Amino acid sequence: MARIVMKFGGTSVADLDRIRNVAARVQREAQAGHEVAVVVSAMAGVTNQLVGWCQALSPLHDAREYDAVVATGEQVTAGLLAIALQERGVESRSWLGWQVPLHTYGAHGKARIAAIEGAELVRRLGAGQVAVVAGFQGIGPDHRVTTLGRGGSDTSAVALAAALKADRCDIYTDVEGIYTTDPRIVAKARKLDKIAYEEMLELASLGSKVLQTRSVELAMNERVRLQVLSSFVDAPGTLVVDEDEIVEKEVVTGIAYSRDEAKVTVRRVPDRPGIAAAIFGALSGQNINVDMIVQNVSLDGTTDMTFTVGKSDLPRARAALSDAATQIGYAEISADPDVAKISVVGVGMRSHTGVANTMFRALADKSINIQVISTSEIKVSVLVGAEYTELAVRALHTAYGLDAA
Amino acid sequence: MARIVMKFGGTSVADLDRIRNVAARVQREAQAGHEVAVVVSAMAGVTNQLVGWCQALSPLHDAREYDAVVATGEQVTAGLLAIALQERGVESRSWLGWQVPLHTYGAHGKARIAAIEGAELVRRLGAGQVAVVAGFQGIGPDHRVTTLGRGGSDTSAVALAAALKADRCDIYTDVEGIYTTDPRIVAKARKLDKIAYEEMLELASLGSKVLQTRSVELAMNERVRLQVLSSFVDAPGTLVVDEDEIVEKEVVTGIAYSRDEAKVTVRRVPDRPGIAAAIFGALSGQNINVDMIVQNVSLDGTTDMTFTVGKSDLPRARAALSDAATQIGYAEISADPDVAKISVVGVGMRSHTGVANTMFRALADKSINIQVISTSEIKVSVLVGAEYTELAVRALHTAYGLDAA
Repeated sequence: MARIVMKFGGTSVADLDRIRNVAARVQREAQAGHEVAVVVSAMAGVTNQLVGWCQALSPLHDAREYDAVVATGEQVTAGLLAIALQERGVESRSWLGWQVPLHTYGAHGKARIAAIEGAELVRRLGAGQVAVVAGFQGIGPDHRVTTLGRGGSDTSAVALAAALKADRCDIYTDVEGIYTTDPRIVAKARKLDKIAYEEMLELASLGSKVLQTRSVELAMNERVRLQVLSSFVDAPGTLVVDEDEIVEKEVVTGIAYSRDEAKVTVRRVPDRPGIAAAIFGALSGQNINVDMIVQNVSLDGTTDMTFTVGKSDLPRARAALSDAATQIGYAEISADPDVAKISVVGVGMRSHTGVANTMFRALADKSINIQVISTSEIKVSVLVGAEYTELAVRALHTAYGLDAA
Repeated sequence: MARIVMKFGGTSVADLDRIRNVAARVQREAQAGHEVAVVVSAMAGVTNQLVGWCQALSPLHDAREYDAVVATGEQVTAGLLAIALQERGVESRSWLGWQVPLHTYGAHGKARIAAIEGAELVRRLGAGQVAVVAGFQGIGPDHRVTTLGRGGSDTSAVALAAALKADRCDIYTDVEGIYTTDPRIVAKARKLDKIAYEEMLELASLGSKVLQTRSVELAMNERVRLQVLSSFVDAPGTLVVDEDEIVEKEVVTGIAYSRDEAKVTVRRVPDRPGIAAAIFGALSGQNINVDMIVQNVSLDGTTDMTFTVGKSDLPRARAALSDAATQIGYAEISADPDVAKISVVGVGMRSHTGVANTMFRALADKSINIQVISTSEIKVSVLVGAEYTELAVRALHTAYGLDAA
């Protein structure tokens, strides 16, 4: 007998039939003798509609009211799933964030979880009652509804699994697991049986939409065994686990890509101490995240500074740099949104050399020009022209021996 | 400066434009220096959809889960209206039932209000903040969301007005007030400036959909000054007040009709003590409400018993009587759903004679046969063939001098 947290995303509970399907899956685990807590998202499309209403009424709406409005999506699903479970004879009840309670800090709209009081849930799980918990929501220090930011139900599920000391946290979604790369681009992509937390974290932050980055971070810190699997297909998914649990480590586990970034070049800035601080200080002052950075070799006392920002932040980044123009003292700003970031990720890199070189050679073989390079301990990322995305991903997938037989 | 509770029904908040319109009305009251608490219903159609989902998943669903699901409708409207008010520069916040808190007893799905802790609301109203309260919902002794039954937002508003000792409770709806009768049937129907609580109570229980019966009852007991008015037209509505406040009492204030009842006749039951108890005991055992009752004069030791039940209860009423057939000992049951109940209502009846006679004569003049009669202190009701509904209502409206000049 195990204690399991099962999390179902929006597409898994998109309509009544799918909610019934989820109820059947939950029942199977309960009948196997497991203690089951379920975390649910809003029915697909609902959150977008609610967010749209808030924005239409006021572009700069009160985040506390936004939270009260959008949290209803998960509340509806939780109640409906409890009803569907009861209809199958499974004892269950719904739990809202304030009922658990799942305490968060006060940053409405993107609150972080402070603590979960799980005692009553544990007692009821022990008595055989399935807990259906509304994801994405909590209660703030102001005694009001908070939400955890888009994709927050993943984080709810992991935090609940940690609080309940669950044996496993199963994230049911519309894909069958974590793949070596996007199967829509590479037909030979393989589903991974296991992936290390750190690799999953890199993939999530590199644009993989399967898991929210914060949920992976939390799972890693709390050592929650995550499983990503399909709510539509009966097949084992991908376990996200501690690196030590993976015996046969690949050098590269996966290839990620993102078209969400834009390249910015600040031309002919004076090459003197403090210039980087001036540029990136202006951007961080506007809460604009900067990702890849490269500084050219200095010529005649000036240099070019190139970096990437989120595509949606590009207009604000331009404005922030214009405002700081005299302070920085540049000749020109150029921006290119037609870029893609291609990344190879793997914990095996730590103990293998030549990983980056394999990447550069594979891209050169396809005549793909590399615009910017950035590396971390378990990742190498390059910026290339957006039109090379698929070509680059396929070439790298083959070069690292990831293609399915 | 007054303290006002404003309540807006589903059609008044049916979309974002109407919510903006409501915000403008609320702002006007706030700018006039009043303290304003607003109670909102779900956007039109939302509650029906949520109820439909619960029923589709399980016809006999858990009322606690039903409450968690359907209460979201009002939660969304409350948050959206708070945003719309803030966008107009009006300080405001939303309040959910559990936040106020509005305590109810535990009967989920049709909970009654136990107590409202209004101190914090009063404090904030005093500081100039508009309170937007989600109607229809509260928190039960089990620390879960409860709802007050369909139309419950009216009751929320009146209870809140009583708890806050508000000077007035304005119920905004899609009609301009209370009319002498349904203007869709009688073109000469007049809007009433004032109506007594007891009259309004009779009209509500007789099928007028403008106010929930319980809300009128509560207003009467707590002496809350109600006003019914249009959220679309700028015009004074109808005040629902104590009888003493109405100087010129009409003998008859209004004509109501209902097509929601069916007539049942139990034929040739033994005319002995306890027979009524046997019949109506069988019905009340199934929670079937019986309205008008008439027992024929006894012939050869048997009698016919005729009464009305809600049309939707007719199949269950037949079943209940069949089950009790040997105990009651009747010859036959006949049922007629093609009937209408026509009622004349007025507190002036207490001091005037001949009111019923005017009714019977007016109907006889139109050759309308009266099937059943029932009376109360301030009401006379008759059952007639459904096809005579409009004819009867018009004839009575004229007979009691209610036609507009």
